[in-house]
Amino acid sequence: MQTLKVIKIGGNIIDNQQALDAFIEAFSKIEGPKILVHGGGKLATKLANQMGVEVKMTNGRRITDANTLDIITMVYAGKINKNIVAKLQANRCNAIGFSGADGNAIVSEKRPVKDIDYGFVGDVVKVNTDALEVLLNNKITPVFCAITHDENGQLLNTNADTIASALAIGFAKIYQTELYYCFEKNGVLQDVNDADSVIENINSDNYKTLISDGVIADGMLPKLNNCFHAIENNVYKVCIGKPEMLFNLNNKHTTIQA
Amino acid sequence: MQTLKVIKIGGNIIDNQQALDAFIEAFSKIEGPKILVHGGGKLATKLANQMGVEVKMTNGRRITDANTLDIITMVYAGKINKNIVAKLQANRCNAIGFSGADGNAIVSEKRPVKDIDYGFVGDVVKVNTDALEVLLNNKITPVFCAITHDENGQLLNTNADTIASALAIGFAKIYQTELYYCFEKNGVLQDVNDADSVIENINSDNYKTLISDGVIADGMLPKLNNCFHAIENNVYKVCIGKPEMLFNLNNKHTTIQA
Repeated sequence: MQTLKVIKIGGNIIDNQQALDAFIEAFSKIEGPKILVHGGGKLATKLANQMGVEVKMTNGRRITDANTLDIITMVYAGKINKNIVAKLQANRCNAIGFSGADGNAIVSEKRPVKDIDYGFVGDVVKVNTDALEVLLNNKITPVFCAITHDENGQLLNTNADTIASALAIGFAKIYQTELYYCFEKNGVLQDVNDADSVIENINSDNYKTLISDGVIADGMLPKLNNCFHAIENNVYKVCIGKPEMLFNLNNKHTTIQA
Repeated sequence: MQTLKVIKIGGNIIDNQQALDAFIEAFSKIEGPKILVHGGGKLATKLANQMGVEVKMTNGRRITDANTLDIITMVYAGKINKNIVAKLQANRCNAIGFSGADGNAIVSEKRPVKDIDYGFVGDVVKVNTDALEVLLNNKITPVFCAITHDENGQLLNTNADTIASALAIGFAKIYQTELYYCFEKNGVLQDVNDADSVIENINSDNYKTLISDGVIADGMLPKLNNCFHAIENNVYKVCIGKPEMLFNLNNKHTTIQA
């Protein structure tokens, strides 16, 4: 089985032009089939402020009303996605930008309203690999922004980590898939103040202890949940760390195991 | 040789949600390979106003500075393109949104500065049909916004009529290509005040007379130049009219002939 790498980059790279350029240059050189998933960074909030659209947050999460969905679609699928694709082309990596609507690649359903109405937020229900497979077979790299659709014409804002995990799971039947979450740290840290205290392996046993000890908390919880969801659904390898882990095998990072 | 339809819709459809929905529903039912090219409409100017970015025009043409290019990329490739793709999916037409950077489909070069510096405006130099052909063979419809790239990482604003014409020409070696320019009139009118005075056929002979008589002027000149450029470069059929011409053969329209 051929290996497929699904690589997610977050806001810390998106917001730093120099870091993004360096990443794109290195990413372009990765051999074999690969998919890039990118987050949004701070640009959407900046544009909302420029447009006088109120940014509504609840428990640290963005509420996606119709105006916010427009802004996200413009920034994620427009400005960020197309500029990444153009830079990949400049590095001779043939790429095509995707939302979940393109090629009907990622279908989601609007999150039901319980305590909180998150608005136009979508939870992934299906990945269609057909169109993507055709492109991968032709050495074309899909580049995903964090937007999906409901198959009824509605775009939906969807967490980029979840999109990366859903793609890795969706392709596990065809490829030996590897999922890489790139962020600003060397991995999950035992001591948040010590950049070198990387926990090199997390499995379902020590995961529970790490949560009860408060080592894994806040934003790391959903990220780790996406990791375990992937590992439990036939993704071959899941890693968290700095982008350098992709290019330098000696670079410390966290590997998630079943 | 199989027929490929390249269909361009302009701002009058983009700006009217009801007209756009009706068009997308009808477009979805067109059999055989097809490519949709869309203009931008008034949304980019509206967003520029909201953001306090000055819209600079010279001789009725937009000057594309860096801020304007960002706005255009957000509106054309983001909001408009992704919403069209989502609506095509809702009509069971599998589509993928494209700029010229995606799949390296349309390469342009920044317009040289002579009397006027148009900024980040690109003139088409090459169409790469490879990625698009793979998709068309898999019954997937490419949907183009009016943005190209220079293969060095720079996105460029490019006239949507020119993109449609370049695509039709680029595919003429593989398909019998038909190019349809949809706009708000039934075609080129002999009398601008008489909607029924459609000139049904324009060829290189009567074209010169129509220009010297002032029947074809202003915005119609570059459109007709794109038409003749296509016809002279092996495009099989070029028509101008209301979108209805695509679905109702009795609908009056203008056909361009060599």
